Amino acid sequence: MRDVAIIGIGMTKWGELWEKSLRDVFVESALLAVEESGVDKIDSMYIGSMSSGIFVGQEHIASLLADYMGVNPIPATRVESACASGGIALRQAFIEVASGMSDVVLAGGVEKMTDVDGYQATYALGTASDQEYEGYHGITFPGLYALIARAHMEKYGTTREQLAMVAVKNHHNGSLNPLAQFPFEVTVEAVLNSVMVADPLRILDCSPITDGAAAVVVCPAEMARTLGKPVIKITGSGHATDAIALSSRKDITWLEAVYQSGKKAFDMAGKSPKDIDIIEVHDCFTIAEICVLEALGFFEKGKGGQAVERGQTSMDGDIPVNPSGGLKSKGHPVGATGIAQIVEAVKQLRGEAEKRQVKDARIAMTQNMGGSGGSSVVHILERE
Amino acid sequence: MRDVAIIGIGMTKWGELWEKSLRDVFVESALLAVEESGVDKIDSMYIGSMSSGIFVGQEHIASLLADYMGVNPIPATRVESACASGGIALRQAFIEVASGMSDVVLAGGVEKMTDVDGYQATYALGTASDQEYEGYHGITFPGLYALIARAHMEKYGTTREQLAMVAVKNHHNGSLNPLAQFPFEVTVEAVLNSVMVADPLRILDCSPITDGAAAVVVCPAEMARTLGKPVIKITGSGHATDAIALSSRKDITWLEAVYQSGKKAFDMAGKSPKDIDIIEVHDCFTIAEICVLEALGFFEKGKGGQAVERGQTSMDGDIPVNPSGGLKSKGHPVGATGIAQIVEAVKQLRGEAEKRQVKDARIAMTQNMGGSGGSSVVHILERE
Repeated sequence: MRDVAIIGIGMTKWGELWEKSLRDVFVESALLAVEESGVDKIDSMYIGSMSSGIFVGQEHIASLLADYMGVNPIPATRVESACASGGIALRQAFIEVASGMSDVVLAGGVEKMTDVDGYQATYALGTASDQEYEGYHGITFPGLYALIARAHMEKYGTTREQLAMVAVKNHHNGSLNPLAQFPFEVTVEAVLNSVMVADPLRILDCSPITDGAAAVVVCPAEMARTLGKPVIKITGSGHATDAIALSSRKDITWLEAVYQSGKKAFDMAGKSPKDIDIIEVHDCFTIAEICVLEALGFFEKGKGGQAVERGQTSMDGDIPVNPSGGLKSKGHPVGATGIAQIVEAVKQLRGEAEKRQVKDARIAMTQNMGGSGGSSVVHILERE
Repeated sequence: MRDVAIIGIGMTKWGELWEKSLRDVFVESALLAVEESGVDKIDSMYIGSMSSGIFVGQEHIASLLADYMGVNPIPATRVESACASGGIALRQAFIEVASGMSDVVLAGGVEKMTDVDGYQATYALGTASDQEYEGYHGITFPGLYALIARAHMEKYGTTREQLAMVAVKNHHNGSLNPLAQFPFEVTVEAVLNSVMVADPLRILDCSPITDGAAAVVVCPAEMARTLGKPVIKITGSGHATDAIALSSRKDITWLEAVYQSGKKAFDMAGKSPKDIDIIEVHDCFTIAEICVLEALGFFEKGKGGQAVERGQTSMDGDIPVNPSGGLKSKGHPVGATGIAQIVEAVKQLRGEAEKRQVKDARIAMTQNMGGSGGSSVVHILERE
């Protein structure tokens, strides 16, 4: 397998983009990534999108977007693993370039979520859970994470305030990210007094409904070295699955797919948590960030909440977590999130993250999750 | 890149499977494929499904199905390109094994289409067309192929009877396939007198709404040679896209994505149409089979209808087309179709196709199409 590098990134402002359709939103970011990469053609593309069928009544979007980008007849494939769809798009691009099948591959993600009403959006997101065994009984997606949060609090003594501190940290980081949907600070008090969604999770514990896209271009590392820019290599890629229904798991506070995908990525790259300079994780809810950091081995089981409280995950802490603002502040257009994590990691490794730059970042990790942990994709990126 | 072979196939009877859910339908076929392959574990899987979100309200199905198969935590990825989703699942498995990333990969496809009413099924299938530029104006999917048929008749003199002969041939073949949804013969008169769907296409020109799944297992050819069964190698794989809206094409009777994907597969395998012993093509409507055979170079532009009339595509003709019965008779659970084509090709190459066996078949081709030609995936399989 060949070494693979990321040579172009593209992302535009996220939010409620009512004046744009799915294809507009995607192609803006994709063309930015192609332009930045400096290549004159791409050989293939992968698009992560969770539920374009339910959100905008359009399947077959990879061909549609390739056409709107003007790159037909290249192969274009949509991949889906709920909210981990973007991370999988990068992984498929990585495999295709590593295999020698193609040289220049675009990996993108997109979701247009605000064209439907709240009920329909909640329904669409619920399709990431087990509809026959979870959805049928009426539980919503925030409800599933509320169960996880309650169990974590009960088992490990994680506090309501510690959950809030995840949101406070991520909004602080996001306030420095001009592309974030909600680039403002929040306080612990604001989180604790915000409207209840699913006890104990309040609205400021939840990532928002967002329209947005992101794209990156990958190629063989050898080709990247000829382009005169910092070479950002993909040195680890791990993907794993778990039962998507919480009722099928031994311990709902433990995200086995995150652990497994992290282990594969660490093993491939020959790294461990202490080597990672910055990490973007899937904080769809505040409790998710805590569970993910434990499953990846950054903190002991049950100690994630305390780590946040001690500031270990802040920009000047042991391991800066979600410098981009995370899903919480930056927004969460579900299929695009995994690619936006890569965009932030590349910016940090290139030293282009402006006010939120982590000093001397050389190795970055991204963790993108589907549903309540039914799938997880982890990548390790290194500046050569 | 390593040589890749198919070592296991699985498919059960297709039809209106109201007593089974999507996961039952898929896992039955997947376990057959794993059992037949004789391996004790799989490393990864790809699932083709067009619109599980709209048809059964469930996204995130790759993790769901991996769990129900009992193979967690392996990576499991859903791929989607409308009705070409199954073909893409095989292509991704091929790339992953060829790359050296994994050894044993399952490629499956599934669609559960009969749990919704006819209106909803028509809507779901319409999401393969351009919803903003085609669907918005009220055209259904049969309507798009009716436009293609009318143009082909006008431009090349293709007759209504020639279209009917495609259905007659495929139902004849399908009558010999015990897994087919509609394993009975039809006559030209029956087709011409069947109910009108979208002029000039009648119900017997259209593939049906079907519940079904299919799966295959692939591995390095070197490993396949140790298993003591006929080695069926994947020697060509081509995937291409085109504008999904007919209005964006120069000539709606010409399927450019089919041409491009065929060319790539032929080039990779070092073959041309005269080398192919049997072919499974995407006859979602009778006109589609004719256009596909022209685009792949089996017949001259505009001559596909005459070729059918002359019997050149029959079981004893120059090139037996759709020995399985095709989408028309076998059924068309959209995401599963591309894999079922592979299942038939492998049976033919192994000499296991029973009453519909094509004598001395050594090289097979499959062509799987998304929408009205917005995507196409072609594979060439060879018996070693």
